[in-house]
Amino acid sequence: MEIFVFFDVTDRQAERLREIAGTDTLHLHRGGGGGSSAALATCEVALGNVPAEWLAEAPALRWMQLESVGFNDYAPLAGGPIADRIRLTNLAGFFSDPVAQSALAGVLALYRGIDRLVDLRREGDWLGEGLRPRLRTLAGANVVIFGRGTIARRFEALLAPFGCRVTLFGSDWTGADLDEALSIAEVVFCVAPGTDATRGVFDRDRLAVLPEGAVFANFGRGSLVDEDALADALAAGRLAGAVIDVTLQEPLPRDHRFWTSPNLILTQHTGGGSDDEVDRKIELFADNLDRYRRGAPLRGLVDLSRGY
Amino acid sequence: MEIFVFFDVTDRQAERLREIAGTDTLHLHRGGGGGSSAALATCEVALGNVPAEWLAEAPALRWMQLESVGFNDYAPLAGGPIADRIRLTNLAGFFSDPVAQSALAGVLALYRGIDRLVDLRREGDWLGEGLRPRLRTLAGANVVIFGRGTIARRFEALLAPFGCRVTLFGSDWTGADLDEALSIAEVVFCVAPGTDATRGVFDRDRLAVLPEGAVFANFGRGSLVDEDALADALAAGRLAGAVIDVTLQEPLPRDHRFWTSPNLILTQHTGGGSDDEVDRKIELFADNLDRYRRGAPLRGLVDLSRGY
Repeated sequence: MEIFVFFDVTDRQAERLREIAGTDTLHLHRGGGGGSSAALATCEVALGNVPAEWLAEAPALRWMQLESVGFNDYAPLAGGPIADRIRLTNLAGFFSDPVAQSALAGVLALYRGIDRLVDLRREGDWLGEGLRPRLRTLAGANVVIFGRGTIARRFEALLAPFGCRVTLFGSDWTGADLDEALSIAEVVFCVAPGTDATRGVFDRDRLAVLPEGAVFANFGRGSLVDEDALADALAAGRLAGAVIDVTLQEPLPRDHRFWTSPNLILTQHTGGGSDDEVDRKIELFADNLDRYRRGAPLRGLVDLSRGY
Repeated sequence: MEIFVFFDVTDRQAERLREIAGTDTLHLHRGGGGGSSAALATCEVALGNVPAEWLAEAPALRWMQLESVGFNDYAPLAGGPIADRIRLTNLAGFFSDPVAQSALAGVLALYRGIDRLVDLRREGDWLGEGLRPRLRTLAGANVVIFGRGTIARRFEALLAPFGCRVTLFGSDWTGADLDEALSIAEVVFCVAPGTDATRGVFDRDRLAVLPEGAVFANFGRGSLVDEDALADALAAGRLAGAVIDVTLQEPLPRDHRFWTSPNLILTQHTGGGSDDEVDRKIELFADNLDRYRRGAPLRGLVDLSRGY
């Protein structure tokens, strides 16, 4: 069997991939973009997000392990002969823990004044005592999580020791229920996928439902939120803060209001990142390759027709 | 009965105190420092840290509820007639949750790059992708907690969902055991009281035991740590970061290295702070006053001879 790797790795990681491949032939296509698909023609398995247009020239390919959760690029293949021939697996759940930790880090930073203290240190300014009445704790806070996937549930798990009252909304959410929960929310964690059904959920009217002093965190997609309305609410001091991992445009345009909105922590789509990210992806591939060889069910099999 | 309140409160909080006092007479001594102890002479109960030198002129006083955990100022009274006459209660455990939350906020901020992202936003700089391999998660981290009091245990509880391996050291710690645990520690949370036995525990030699990339957090007392050695370890990049709530001198002197040490979050002794701090202190007093009236055991009774 031949395995095509479309994925940037270090020498050490390449060594590990060879170990995983064993007697199978490994084709390392390093460098990501560009390059040739020649070696792909005879490969049965691929690791990495091989460009969709190359797949027509990969007649031997039977399984591709993506290195992302999203698979929008391959959605146009749904129902066609390529999708019929090649199984796709994604990294569903892979980023749950790092994203949930980044979200908690951001929210706790706002609650405990970490962002403010970073600024104060740069300015050489000691506020000390004077800052204490402005800090809050998460103890018993009303938290609304918009999303019910693995990240949402991991965030809920991290909140458990804080004794928060948590309400999750999955794809069966209704505007009335959501508004009712939001009207008493102290923290909102938005982590739903970007689909037609979630576009603009947090528009100006819905953000206005949030009580004074609420904190809004978005680790879902930028399309879910009216960014201008959010910037207005922060500028007016109506919301106490925001943690924003995803924006409509990334990188964020230089003149975007989020660069200067008060009490906004911009995490620059790093939520899923970690120093062991690539190593963990390789080990996940190793596990799935073992399943593939044994004919066992693959983890993370995607349904192209769902689109996310 | 007369009650002396040596404690800054708002009008609303004064109202609540009157409600708690009921038919008892309340003497509100607002403004903290200075002022007269005249009203104290006839009071049986006091709320707040009444200056130790006033207590000789408070013959009717039987119980004083401190508004702090520490009671060093009253230690010289140990064994004398005043300590014999007046019971002292402190706020043991009161700050556990806010301090533990601040400590977790600081450590998570370092792990997830929040401090760096705050700086990047100020500079209008988008790193995004490039930052991800520099982030870490707390999943399964080796954590050493130096301290075994309520804050230590609360911090341990907050860590539970992260699956960390936590080792606590109480007053029975030995240098050999501590060094062994520190040699594989990824996070050190120092939260022991400042006593003769803990002074300089984290000296230059012991900080050198920590592995490359460890994060050091001090929410105990500044006296526990060799600040210059810590600043050296941060400057050399040997430690990945530090979260410092307490320092030898507070406010931190303007020329102190901690103002500019890389990857240091200086929380300026705000760890115990929260917007409901005074309200919570008043409710704790209400509960203890009820116990006092009923002759029930008081919460937080201190042993002056222990010194902390």
